[in-house]
Amino acid sequence: MQKAEILRSIESLSKKNIDAMYLNDFLLTWDKSEEEIYATLQTAEILRAMRGDNISCHTFDSGLAISIFRDQSTRTRFSFASACNLLGLAIQELDEEKSQITHGETVRETANMISFLAEVIGIRDDIYLGEGHTYMKEVARAVHQGHQEGVLPQRPTLVNLQCDIDHPTQTMSDALHLINTFGGVENLKGKKIAMSWAYSPSYGKPLSVPQGVIGLMTRFGMDVVLAHPEGYNLMSEVVALAQTNSAQAGGSFSQMMSMEEAFRDADIVYPKSWAPYSVMKERTRLLQAGDLDGLKALEKHCLETNKQFVDWECTEKLMQTTRQGQALYMHCLPADISGVSCEKGEVEASVFERYRVPQYTQAGYKPYIIAAMIFLSKFKNPADKLAELVDRGRARVFDSD
Amino acid sequence: MQKAEILRSIESLSKKNIDAMYLNDFLLTWDKSEEEIYATLQTAEILRAMRGDNISCHTFDSGLAISIFRDQSTRTRFSFASACNLLGLAIQELDEEKSQITHGETVRETANMISFLAEVIGIRDDIYLGEGHTYMKEVARAVHQGHQEGVLPQRPTLVNLQCDIDHPTQTMSDALHLINTFGGVENLKGKKIAMSWAYSPSYGKPLSVPQGVIGLMTRFGMDVVLAHPEGYNLMSEVVALAQTNSAQAGGSFSQMMSMEEAFRDADIVYPKSWAPYSVMKERTRLLQAGDLDGLKALEKHCLETNKQFVDWECTEKLMQTTRQGQALYMHCLPADISGVSCEKGEVEASVFERYRVPQYTQAGYKPYIIAAMIFLSKFKNPADKLAELVDRGRARVFDSD
Amino acid sequence: MQKAEILRSIESLSKKNIDAMYLNDFLLTWDKSEEEIYATLQTAEILRAMRGDNISCHTFDSGLAISIFRDQSTRTRFSFASACNLLGLAIQELDEEKSQITHGETVRETANMISFLAEVIGIRDDIYLGEGHTYMKEVARAVHQGHQEGVLPQRPTLVNLQCDIDHPTQTMSDALHLINTFGGVENLKGKKIAMSWAYSPSYGKPLSVPQGVIGLMTRFGMDVVLAHPEGYNLMSEVVALAQTNSAQAGGSFSQMMSMEEAFRDADIVYPKSWAPYSVMKERTRLLQAGDLDGLKALEKHCLETNKQFVDWECTEKLMQTTRQGQALYMHCLPADISGVSCEKGEVEASVFERYRVPQYTQAGYKPYIIAAMIFLSKFKNPADKLAELVDRGRARVFDSD
Repeated sequence: MQKAEILRSIESLSKKNIDAMYLNDFLLTWDKSEEEIYATLQTAEILRAMRGDNISCHTFDSGLAISIFRDQSTRTRFSFASACNLLGLAIQELDEEKSQITHGETVRETANMISFLAEVIGIRDDIYLGEGHTYMKEVARAVHQGHQEGVLPQRPTLVNLQCDIDHPTQTMSDALHLINTFGGVENLKGKKIAMSWAYSPSYGKPLSVPQGVIGLMTRFGMDVVLAHPEGYNLMSEVVALAQTNSAQAGGSFSQMMSMEEAFRDADIVYPKSWAPYSVMKERTRLLQAGDLDGLKALEKHCLETNKQFVDWECTEKLMQTTRQGQALYMHCLPADISGVSCEKGEVEASVFERYRVPQYTQAGYKPYIIAAMIFLSKFKNPADKLAELVDRGRARVFDSD
Repeated sequence: MQKAEILRSIESLSKKNIDAMYLNDFLLTWDKSEEEIYATLQTAEILRAMRGDNISCHTFDSGLAISIFRDQSTRTRFSFASACNLLGLAIQELDEEKSQITHGETVRETANMISFLAEVIGIRDDIYLGEGHTYMKEVARAVHQGHQEGVLPQRPTLVNLQCDIDHPTQTMSDALHLINTFGGVENLKGKKIAMSWAYSPSYGKPLSVPQGVIGLMTRFGMDVVLAHPEGYNLMSEVVALAQTNSAQAGGSFSQMMSMEEAFRDADIVYPKSWAPYSVMKERTRLLQAGDLDGLKALEKHCLETNKQFVDWECTEKLMQTTRQGQALYMHCLPADISGVSCEKGEVEASVFERYRVPQYTQAGYKPYIIAAMIFLSKFKNPADKLAELVDRGRARVFDSD
Repeated sequence: MQKAEILRSIESLSKKNIDAMYLNDFLLTWDKSEEEIYATLQTAEILRAMRGDNISCHTFDSGLAISIFRDQSTRTRFSFASACNLLGLAIQELDEEKSQITHGETVRETANMISFLAEVIGIRDDIYLGEGHTYMKEVARAVHQGHQEGVLPQRPTLVNLQCDIDHPTQTMSDALHLINTFGGVENLKGKKIAMSWAYSPSYGKPLSVPQGVIGLMTRFGMDVVLAHPEGYNLMSEVVALAQTNSAQAGGSFSQMMSMEEAFRDADIVYPKSWAPYSVMKERTRLLQAGDLDGLKALEKHCLETNKQFVDWECTEKLMQTTRQGQALYMHCLPADISGVSCEKGEVEASVFERYRVPQYTQAGYKPYIIAAMIFLSKFKNPADKLAELVDRGRARVFDSD
């Protein structure tokens, strides 16, 4: 984008009704209105274009960005760090092991104690079903209250970096990738996307990605297909929500137990492993009880069950059955690639490699998506603020010209 | 504070004799003159007001702020990070486990090796009695020497983030809280503050907070009362110092073995658990000897002894006996709250909850106190520098107006 | 340096042919031309002088600097952090234990996933012989490809923070120390430097420092002597390279098995322990096989072998035999100091202490060397960019004058 184009996009952003995003959090995409979703995607592209034109997006001269990772992370950790740094915020990680968060200390207290000069809190909490989203809401309530009580001079924004229900920074990046691949959000209407379970020699992968995908993509009027073997259900609330979204947006949503059927004439395929909802429930119970033997037994049982569905693999042959054999292959990465990272996995190596650059491109949107989520919550008139930043014209990489 | 008020406060700061703070450290409040203590409190308020008015306090375009945590920390870790970030410094933590600090490497060498581009070093070292303060002085000597020898292009400032003797960033925040609650430092004269031991189902809590409180509050002409069960002594040097301070400042200092007596007609109560000096001495010996069995036995013995004093609890009933039943309740947090974080603890839940917002406010001063400590040591004429920052008028959060 | 001098140095830098450094990495000093080596040393001095004159070197308004430490580090960790911070980059460490880098994830993928907004990647990987340099080249290839494919909007620069072959940030700092000590690179011609093995009560120290020293110092026309007990060989390729360098630069390179002979009339001595190449090979094999018993046996055997050479110590007596008894003593630190960090070690305490300040000074160049390596790879016309920074005249520490 050239500067003129950036300004046009900012102008169009200014017309969106996104007042409710101000001082608000980004926890689930379905909490957000259609205009808010589009505004986020658009702001991500504006920030990306500004950086591309060497226009600094530095908005905060000081301020902390707190990250809380209750599960491992590389991509999201670096995306969050990149996004915050882009806006001028300094990362401070809350390492719960190094901290003095004692048994009895309330979430409310900790949340306030770390947030005196914080602008944003990013949280990954995706291991325990029924916990992650609940925890995020509790933190959000705490800092909201703290701000109202005058304890916190500013209201830190919460960004969900993956919970037990949704993974909005991932799926919004996915959506931006689709929009840019198909030449505009209007072109997604009627496109068939197959969110399919795929075989993996591991178990216990979170449900948040498939749930997030069906929860978000149904809002663009797409034909969303969810496929998985019998028993590999997602949370029923999210499936019901996808149904509702779809009815409202004018696309379709269907479920099936066949990868082949899901892939047929699909424009986009998203084959990915996950654990059945019931297994995640049981796993949560065992983890919380510290029942290591139970966990081992569950893992063993699940891996054996998985093996029945080893043919749920995204092969070249299957890709041939998609729309003109040209469907866009997507994955949130890292994928289990047959013959590369495991003997048999989610995808054939040649399929993965053919779509490697698009996938990396897809992943590359995440820092800007996160930056957009933060930006939109921080300013009452974010479009004005963006225009002012462009106008300021400070260079990201020093340039005396 | 409005800008005019900020400038007035800076003007008054400029008249204080604080030359000795330049290129100096902040290790113990009693190393500092009365004017230096007031200047620190005042500078903290100026920085807080500047941030509140969206005036950037960014003073360093580059420079490291090193943190060394030899004990767990959340509040202080985030306060230090916030303070340094406010001034433009980047945090770099020295993780002694990940570092190549071998058995024989001298403190002098490490201190110099990490400080080539460092402006400040914050240290928490509060576990071993007789060690923390000694270590900080050794580091201070090392970087002072390094600067004098030309090895370090600048003299990094040391900030004590809690040692075995004092916890100045905590008690200075406490003092600022008192000043703001009672409407000025002059109003603290003659106010009764009860620093009282309280029961906790844990053991081994450092002595630095009660010691720091009696060491500092006696300087404001307050009536400082120290109460604890027989045997729960603090370091005798600090008790003697409180006596001296009090005599000089015109208040009083007394000791008693009754929480009830301490609370009677108190304006402020600070009930908090700590381990007896003799126990901390023994614990230090056992920790250094790696005597795990000994430590277990000591813990068991101490917890049983503690149980004799389970009625040393800050109850509603006790609060009724304070001045008009309205004493300000204080705690450095986290508190052991009866029925919340433990069965029986330091404070009744309803008392704690009633004073929750003031307590969070109290904690919220810490980042500015730390920033003030750094700022005053970095500039020969800190008041001039603050005035110049206000005059520069750079926004903390970008604002084109 | 005064500003006029800085500008003169920049002017002279602008005449060097260093085009190949642009968007390139710094992995081995012998990958670099003579002009590139000198340009790096010169740029380090320019940046140091700029900071000394309170001229901000802040070049990046945002951007990540990624560090990957596969071995412990204090000095280099802080030097890297200092260098990146000096240029305006924010450190983000890749902690491979906290990350989701699964067994099968390719280096190519991880390298791209973390680098979307990264300007530099610093890597220490010095434990496994045959691995570190190979890994760095793989990461470099990955981000180069990522940039070419449009996945990465910029090409992150790799900086070798110590590999199995070379330790360029160390040896370049050593070279700068020599240049400043002897009054110019032209004065190094014909100077005798003794890179000698020395006894240490530990084993398994990397070969990268002695290899880096003989690989670099032979390029300045010095008389480089490598001394070690029989069997304590370095990589033969690097020894051959030192020979070639020496022939080209017009100095000499010789090997001997006597510390005494090496020290005789030396202008500079660099006594330091290392493990024999064959031991490092075996150690790598055992580490990779996870053979703990084998490792213990190897350590025991090596320590016993070492003991035969306990007289390879840099003593006062030996120092007397150097050029006028005044040779410059060097060490990359930390040193094994007899009677200080061990009973018997690499150097006598009085020798070490006499040269302590020069050694600390030597170590202090590292942040600027690293900053120079980054700077030269980031700008097509780095001299112009430096001149513009000087011209901008922003203060590092805020100064309204």
